[in-house]
Amino acid sequence: MNVDIGNALATVASPGISRERLERLDAQVADAHERIEAGMEHAEHGYEALNLPENVDPADIRQAVGPVTDADALITVGIGGSALGAATITDALADESDTEAIYLDNVDPDWVTGHLERIDLENAAINVVSRSGTTAETLANFLVVREAFEDAGVDWTERTIVTTGESGPLRDLSDRHDLPSLKVPDGVPGRFSALSAVGLVAAEVCGHDIDTLLEGAAAERKTLTGSLFDCPAYAYGATSYALDQRGAAINAMMPYAESLETSAEWFAQLWAESLGKDDLGQTPARALGVTDQHSQLQLYRAGPRDKLVTFVVPQEQSDRAIPDTEVDDLAYLGDSTLGELLAAEFEATEASLAAAGRPNVRIELERVDEYELGGFLYGMEAACVLAGELYGVNTFEQPAVEWAKKATRGLLGGGDFEEADAVAEKTELRIER
Amino acid sequence: MNVDIGNALATVASPGISRERLERLDAQVADAHERIEAGMEHAEHGYEALNLPENVDPADIRQAVGPVTDADALITVGIGGSALGAATITDALADESDTEAIYLDNVDPDWVTGHLERIDLENAAINVVSRSGTTAETLANFLVVREAFEDAGVDWTERTIVTTGESGPLRDLSDRHDLPSLKVPDGVPGRFSALSAVGLVAAEVCGHDIDTLLEGAAAERKTLTGSLFDCPAYAYGATSYALDQRGAAINAMMPYAESLETSAEWFAQLWAESLGKDDLGQTPARALGVTDQHSQLQLYRAGPRDKLVTFVVPQEQSDRAIPDTEVDDLAYLGDSTLGELLAAEFEATEASLAAAGRPNVRIELERVDEYELGGFLYGMEAACVLAGELYGVNTFEQPAVEWAKKATRGLLGGGDFEEADAVAEKTELRIER
Repeated sequence: MNVDIGNALATVASPGISRERLERLDAQVADAHERIEAGMEHAEHGYEALNLPENVDPADIRQAVGPVTDADALITVGIGGSALGAATITDALADESDTEAIYLDNVDPDWVTGHLERIDLENAAINVVSRSGTTAETLANFLVVREAFEDAGVDWTERTIVTTGESGPLRDLSDRHDLPSLKVPDGVPGRFSALSAVGLVAAEVCGHDIDTLLEGAAAERKTLTGSLFDCPAYAYGATSYALDQRGAAINAMMPYAESLETSAEWFAQLWAESLGKDDLGQTPARALGVTDQHSQLQLYRAGPRDKLVTFVVPQEQSDRAIPDTEVDDLAYLGDSTLGELLAAEFEATEASLAAAGRPNVRIELERVDEYELGGFLYGMEAACVLAGELYGVNTFEQPAVEWAKKATRGLLGGGDFEEADAVAEKTELRIER
Repeated sequence: MNVDIGNALATVASPGISRERLERLDAQVADAHERIEAGMEHAEHGYEALNLPENVDPADIRQAVGPVTDADALITVGIGGSALGAATITDALADESDTEAIYLDNVDPDWVTGHLERIDLENAAINVVSRSGTTAETLANFLVVREAFEDAGVDWTERTIVTTGESGPLRDLSDRHDLPSLKVPDGVPGRFSALSAVGLVAAEVCGHDIDTLLEGAAAERKTLTGSLFDCPAYAYGATSYALDQRGAAINAMMPYAESLETSAEWFAQLWAESLGKDDLGQTPARALGVTDQHSQLQLYRAGPRDKLVTFVVPQEQSDRAIPDTEVDDLAYLGDSTLGELLAAEFEATEASLAAAGRPNVRIELERVDEYELGGFLYGMEAACVLAGELYGVNTFEQPAVEWAKKATRGLLGGGDFEEADAVAEKTELRIER
């Protein structure tokens, strides 16, 4: 990926970063880079994620998924980091695949049932992903899916791939039924695991080239040098951090391609869970070009000066001509294509924010393919790790979600937890219709 | 809808609202309500939207859509307020419909082509919506869709419904081909038009009960009295405003039902475009329960104290048992249902925010049906109008989007616009891979 931070400079935007501040920031980046390199070298928790391009063996993944590569539909049962990386890849490349990728990342009963009734289970496969093997939503859904296969007379043990940690309930279950299984690599938190089996199993089953995904990531890894001026990932991470320091508490991620919509969800998890702690962290907002020009642009341009808008823009797309029309006022459209309209809308939106002094950054991908996606996933992860160093937070933990997990378990009778008791003490002030 | 603002009180959260401040706020609400009632009475621009439940005649809509009620797929061509209201309704009720509702609200060439190639155009209908009749994305897509029908040998003039203003290119085109057409009501901005033909054509074609949608809205309209303590909509609008004043610059909308995911997009437009001006306005963030507990909850609970989390929770849902398992550590799940898990997760998440002193509001719907949806759409619109009064902004305009529209048109050769020239002057600071 390439990054253009020109519209984040203080000469353009407020908040903005002066050239002088960029130089000082670069010294911080150099220090942070040393810590990152050391963490990678010693395979420290979290930093290890940045070693995935060289550590992951695509042959292991190909072997595990071998029995189900003929599936018409792949049901991935996972949530958060166990689903979003895979979904980013398979949604971005869905046009190239004959396999429908479904993500059961919620426990809404109607919605789960709707999927299971719609799919031809005989030709479907299951991809269940949970590092701990105890994630309530994932295990509940897996039990439901398993039963649906049994009810349909399909042997789920022949059509299930498990990706989990070294031990835990899901590992036990996998061993008991002798399922093909893969390991979530040690030291790689879920939201940084897209380039491991966690993200690549679905990619492989859907027929995408996982070698090229890893090659794209490896090319991005090579840019991780000590300067933001030489490394697109660091340029993005450092710019976001510096803008947040100056008031851009919100990071609106706005890809200009429908196929990249899921990537904004993936980014939202990466950014929120990694940096949102100690009362710090930018809040990600998801948008989509051009759609959200007619929804969010008014606010982005004229609301509070509290946001950075991040554009993700493929440089090459296929195209489609806009037919001529008999209506004079629309004649200009007839000389154009949808692709030209999309490109013009992007440039106009970017410029309209700059003209209003609102900071924005452009991330360019050559096109939406395996190589560029691998680079994007790796690059944004590296940007996030760098930002975590600059914030001084523990990028790789998510302690604040434990409270609700315990409360949920307690409420369902899975043990005594004081958190569950607190639920009953809710302060009410109800206004009823 | 019912609203519970207990977790927004200063005794629970920071930022939070004291009981005393609520009383003073209520006096402001009373004043604002007088202005709103006067605006409604005089059918003033924008306020007129709150009169829709009594002004819309469902018979007009039924008559216009008569020829296409047998469609297997309805392609709505519209963007922003011309799509999101309809999409909220048809996505929420999709389980009840045999008609697939498709929204062409983007000009991504691959994506548009993908839809057109997938659908059986012979059994599809077109619903084109643009108040001005000049919206570039909508008109471009309509020209493309029209041509696709022609190429497939289907007479699009027999299968198209137009909703637009009194005059303009789309009205001309509709007249020329004698298409069934409906009018965007005067004084009703796009983002407030869900309960007019703009939202109800798609609902009707998809077989939903538009009378009941309007009845639900009318019931909510009856609650618009001068006090936030008697009116769920005002309670929500006033609470959001008061929390923003105290630092909650972000409003994270988090429905606990997959079917309501689109409603968070609709809300995001309503809130952003109406209130995001004069450097004011809360920034909407879209989330989804339970999925985003594994993505955004860490940030919401432990990040900056700059957000309100709004839950939207149906009280009744259908259910599905979680099968028993042989794994001890998961036994507690086997005694539950997906619905119980979903409910427990919601309560746990709500309580976990309260326990961390983070303000949140609960919006309850009885269930997801026409009546409750009508009430929700109306209620949130009224909440937004109230908030606009409290902010003192012009709720019903969106001047900041004009710049990019002119620039786009200029870039495509649709006239001379200085905005288009500004695009070429972009400040670059590129970091390349």
